[in-house]
Amino acid sequence: MVAFIAGAFATRPPVTTMEATLSDGVVHASGNARERFYDSQGYGQPRANGALALAPVEAAHLLFRGDLDAVDGMDFHDFLASGSVSETVFLVYKDLRDRGFYLSPAREAFADDPDGADLIVYPRGKGPWDDEVAYRIRVVGERTDVPATELGDVVLAVVDEESEITYFETGVPEIEGNSRTDLPAEIEGELLSDRVTVPRPPEGLYEECFYGQPLDESASDVLQLSLLEAAYLAREGALAVDGGAHVLQERGRAVEGERFDRRLAVYTTLRERGVVPKTGFKFGADFRTYADVESVADLGHSEFLVRVVPGDHVFSPRDLALDVRLAHGVRKRMVFALTDAKGAIDWLTVTRLTP
Amino acid sequence: MVAFIAGAFATRPPVTTMEATLSDGVVHASGNARERFYDSQGYGQPRANGALALAPVEAAHLLFRGDLDAVDGMDFHDFLASGSVSETVFLVYKDLRDRGFYLSPAREAFADDPDGADLIVYPRGKGPWDDEVAYRIRVVGERTDVPATELGDVVLAVVDEESEITYFETGVPEIEGNSRTDLPAEIEGELLSDRVTVPRPPEGLYEECFYGQPLDESASDVLQLSLLEAAYLAREGALAVDGGAHVLQERGRAVEGERFDRRLAVYTTLRERGVVPKTGFKFGADFRTYADVESVADLGHSEFLVRVVPGDHVFSPRDLALDVRLAHGVRKRMVFALTDAKGAIDWLTVTRLTP
Repeated sequence: MVAFIAGAFATRPPVTTMEATLSDGVVHASGNARERFYDSQGYGQPRANGALALAPVEAAHLLFRGDLDAVDGMDFHDFLASGSVSETVFLVYKDLRDRGFYLSPAREAFADDPDGADLIVYPRGKGPWDDEVAYRIRVVGERTDVPATELGDVVLAVVDEESEITYFETGVPEIEGNSRTDLPAEIEGELLSDRVTVPRPPEGLYEECFYGQPLDESASDVLQLSLLEAAYLAREGALAVDGGAHVLQERGRAVEGERFDRRLAVYTTLRERGVVPKTGFKFGADFRTYADVESVADLGHSEFLVRVVPGDHVFSPRDLALDVRLAHGVRKRMVFALTDAKGAIDWLTVTRLTP
Repeated sequence: MVAFIAGAFATRPPVTTMEATLSDGVVHASGNARERFYDSQGYGQPRANGALALAPVEAAHLLFRGDLDAVDGMDFHDFLASGSVSETVFLVYKDLRDRGFYLSPAREAFADDPDGADLIVYPRGKGPWDDEVAYRIRVVGERTDVPATELGDVVLAVVDEESEITYFETGVPEIEGNSRTDLPAEIEGELLSDRVTVPRPPEGLYEECFYGQPLDESASDVLQLSLLEAAYLAREGALAVDGGAHVLQERGRAVEGERFDRRLAVYTTLRERGVVPKTGFKFGADFRTYADVESVADLGHSEFLVRVVPGDHVFSPRDLALDVRLAHGVRKRMVFALTDAKGAIDWLTVTRLTP
């Protein structure tokens, strides 16, 4: 059946008939395979006996191109159907080759560092004989969930049901800002059902430190604080409400359970780093953040959208695509705050990548 | 404290000093309250004794405007802090009044049909004395989860932490199309790990019926089908694979569990209605849909983004905002397919509304 698939290559026959054998998950090709495939194109690993060891995905690509005729008598389609290679990994391998990269399967070629990666991509113009890596790629289908803890040092390549590939670069963001971190002297607030009002707020509380929001445009001398802002200020001793700080936390938990505590931990950390978090509701996120607030009147663009998730969160690639696409559309970076039960936070940023 | 809030109204004192009393959740105002508030502005319900019965949110708004001086001695801020009225409902009530609508609290004014609504909004220029309703509004905070089953006939008003309000119209979409529903004569396919390939597919299978995707641009005579497309075709007797249709379903379940069955039920229903579902991955959805496919070469804009959720799904307003905003940005309508265990589907559409 290879004829249908490799039709475009029919005019470029193999230099010599080239067959190969599969054993223990490695495809062995002899003859001039090393010269043709490794030396000039970066496929496989040369072995001491002069033969070339190919990973199944490399062999599949050579079959697809028509450079290999068969592996144990199987043509490209039979080889794929044999289960020797995942077709999602093959599709990504092919896409990256089409983009001009040399690459190797991670598990075979880099046994010392395959963790979480399926493919190792070399910088353009480089190959397996060099010592540089451009991307470590993890391949999943659009329906395969991915634990958040497995991201951060790989590029996630998602193959959708139409075999289109979306690449997500994952990493650890630098989250530091220069917004004012000083707290006001203790102010008094009144807890309503879902927010706290502060009458006659101290100068700068809103305008410079960007806490709260005036209740009404015509009434800038009453400030309303979100429960989160109020809980933070109260815990820092900067806000007094009847019943004390824990009343605010209890109110928050009443609506969203332990999620409130996780969000408070993230809010607190962001503030401590000089970054101002405000609600990200309109963007479907927990927070949007401002790194350099000098005054609300002269507010810059917010840089990040932050979504707070538990440390053991598992991403659906679809939801990841949604978050990242929306963030991109509003010129912000999507950041996930992975919080454990004690409030420790691992930061993860995910952005769309075009290799 | 009302002075700070109603500062803007200080130049417009009440015509007469107007006080009111609260009992059993109803605020009673006498004197000329009926003429001033009901007849000319649509607040409250007139009672036989000539007095006016106001819902707490109405009284709060009159206090806020300075038209009422006090309720049981409480000014606006005290009244809000007393817990007699939810400030989120108040904020939405105020916003709609600011937009020029007359409205009533649903529970008090429409005891026969308050289901799931907090506020009843009359068409512009109409009031409680008329018999028309423009919107039934349900009010939630940005952190309050909302069961999907409670949507479909209300407008959801979400008050975010900065008290900005986003309105979502919810309804039941008409999902009908004119795409071809005839199935091919039985074709043969080969199951790979995550898709099915069909060599030499019958004419029109892709080009007219929009099943599958060519494996490669240079190889249009091998079609790949997603597991979902393949499972559908196999169950309809239009595709044969080794082991039969149930092998496809098992493979699907292996990756995404019972979600695969729910997605298959939605896929099937859409196809039966003449609508072509294709992956919505790039938009973070399960499907994008095409209502009138005559040929892939002349494909129109896809109309809906469909997300498949269990029938007992509970929306986080934040996630709803995300889906609806993204769909709007790509000029599609967001549709949720609520599926029960037997594959029955309730459709729900959610769009952003500016009242």
